[in-house]
Amino acid sequence: MQTIKVKTKSRPSTVYCGEGAVKKLEELLDGKDIFVVTDTNVYRLYEDFIRSTFPHSPVFAVPAGERHKTPHTLFSILDQMLQARLRRNCWLVALGGGVVGDMGGLAASLYMRGIPAVQVPTTLLAQVDSSVGGKTAVDYRGVKNVIGAFYQPEYVFCDPMFLKTLPAREIRCGLGEIVKTGALEGTIFDQLEKNADRLADFAFLEEITAACVRFKAGIVEKDECERSGLRKCLNMGHTTGHALELFYGRRSHGEYVLIGMFFESCIAERIGICAADYARRLRTLIGRVVKKLPRFENIGEAARTALYDKKNEKKNEVSLILPRSQGAYAEAKLSIEEYIGLIEDINGGNL
Amino acid sequence: MQTIKVKTKSRPSTVYCGEGAVKKLEELLDGKDIFVVTDTNVYRLYEDFIRSTFPHSPVFAVPAGERHKTPHTLFSILDQMLQARLRRNCWLVALGGGVVGDMGGLAASLYMRGIPAVQVPTTLLAQVDSSVGGKTAVDYRGVKNVIGAFYQPEYVFCDPMFLKTLPAREIRCGLGEIVKTGALEGTIFDQLEKNADRLADFAFLEEITAACVRFKAGIVEKDECERSGLRKCLNMGHTTGHALELFYGRRSHGEYVLIGMFFESCIAERIGICAADYARRLRTLIGRVVKKLPRFENIGEAARTALYDKKNEKKNEVSLILPRSQGAYAEAKLSIEEYIGLIEDINGGNL
Repeated sequence: MQTIKVKTKSRPSTVYCGEGAVKKLEELLDGKDIFVVTDTNVYRLYEDFIRSTFPHSPVFAVPAGERHKTPHTLFSILDQMLQARLRRNCWLVALGGGVVGDMGGLAASLYMRGIPAVQVPTTLLAQVDSSVGGKTAVDYRGVKNVIGAFYQPEYVFCDPMFLKTLPAREIRCGLGEIVKTGALEGTIFDQLEKNADRLADFAFLEEITAACVRFKAGIVEKDECERSGLRKCLNMGHTTGHALELFYGRRSHGEYVLIGMFFESCIAERIGICAADYARRLRTLIGRVVKKLPRFENIGEAARTALYDKKNEKKNEVSLILPRSQGAYAEAKLSIEEYIGLIEDINGGNL
Repeated sequence: MQTIKVKTKSRPSTVYCGEGAVKKLEELLDGKDIFVVTDTNVYRLYEDFIRSTFPHSPVFAVPAGERHKTPHTLFSILDQMLQARLRRNCWLVALGGGVVGDMGGLAASLYMRGIPAVQVPTTLLAQVDSSVGGKTAVDYRGVKNVIGAFYQPEYVFCDPMFLKTLPAREIRCGLGEIVKTGALEGTIFDQLEKNADRLADFAFLEEITAACVRFKAGIVEKDECERSGLRKCLNMGHTTGHALELFYGRRSHGEYVLIGMFFESCIAERIGICAADYARRLRTLIGRVVKKLPRFENIGEAARTALYDKKNEKKNEVSLILPRSQGAYAEAKLSIEEYIGLIEDINGGNL
């Protein structure tokens, strides 16, 4: 198990990563007043574990699924906290995937103006990405994550035991963010290429998860609230991936990130930001997770629709984080027309 | 006009206090994307001012009154912000009393995980107290301020021009927190005693407001999130005052703070924490604002009901911040029975 500190200005956070993280949780939370938030799926799988780890704590399971990541569910959590008469010295444990972590973290930040939060991510995606860095949110009026807070958890416990119950789709989803991290950090890229045949092995996942968390911690420490622009690099693949996810759905978020990275690596190559050789190595890696790329119908329309996404601060311009060379990336701004022309042209190509 | 810095860890905040603050606002916010939150009362009085100061900005007036300080109103603000297609670089200006400031600040903290907030307090209470220090909140399920955040505003503009439209009741309300500050800080106490005949004069209010803000800034810098216990001193008079406010209503918050201070100064004297002479000087000052104290019917029941207030972390115990001597105070813990016996005994006494 590795211990990774995230030294943000607002509140330092400690991540325990690897086998034994859950034991550490029992040790660190012993004797505390605790409120557990989970979802109905996770509760079904881990009821015994939850009841034996938190025998005296109220447990609230929200309905599972992204479509429940709403103010309504957030306030149902806050309601339960009030009914349990929780005081300001109690701790909230969010045990589940990204949706539970995002809403649980936000509830902790709001209850009596903030009680300590603990993240116990149970999906690979949440372990390598969303549980670390303090982003919490709910969706509202169809806009993703538009209501939220930057609120660092006291502890994050990433235990590989939870990965054993995940379907293959969920492992692929987490690998999406892992490969993205590889495109930002050279050592992780090497590890991924070297282990390309066993990306989904638990032993490898445990090792690479800690590396990804360590990289993200470094970024978050320097730009906690996404103000300097540095933290934006974590959005590589997300502009295009998110546009396609919104329009076509069905696949997981992480897979769409990889598909987005496929398009964006091609763009990087075409506009001369990235050498063909490295772009090809990146796409080979993407191909280890996403076996087959479809040809997207009406991809121009999909992109155009998504450019209303609130994250694009200037109109008529698309901002992309593009791969440059191993361990290096660059931000590029393209006009909407140029961008759409490029992805229409790339659409249907092979990995 | 005085400039007071509040150097908190999370985000430094600057308060402009005195005549000309509003001019400074125009200068500092020039060219920014702004969303104005106010309430229907303030908008009726200051429509021309608001329209000419923020000619291109959306203005949203929430219904006036404490009973609208709810998640429902909070989300109506967030709705309007979304409909105005505000981006992460826009600023929220909360122009109004404490309710507008609390809700506007919370909306700013939550919109896209936080946009800069500006407080323009229009009541004396908000100028001397609630607009400074970053406490934001809404009430929920009958519990005051139970959902909220510590979120420092970028700027606070306390301009005395707003005090001119305030009814006498509102001036008395603000004087409640001013006299409370005097009980915590010796120089302010001197100023209050020296000006006891003109407490409600605008010139005096302008001067004393800046002194109170400066004092509060010093406390907030040392204990932003009310964790070390230091910030608790600002609750002097509030335990008893709040209990009576909840039970009997009618008078303003600040007046109840003073009534609470009356009871608590008597308690401090009786349990030997405060010398009789200083306690009497304090009560004389209180009498300059609260002309006559009623005899409260069933005061024991009122106190008992309020001790369910979430702020009292330990059961069977009441925590009070009591005056000790000029510029000094102490925390005292009494059993509920002792406390109730004392206030029943003090009830009906004279100022």
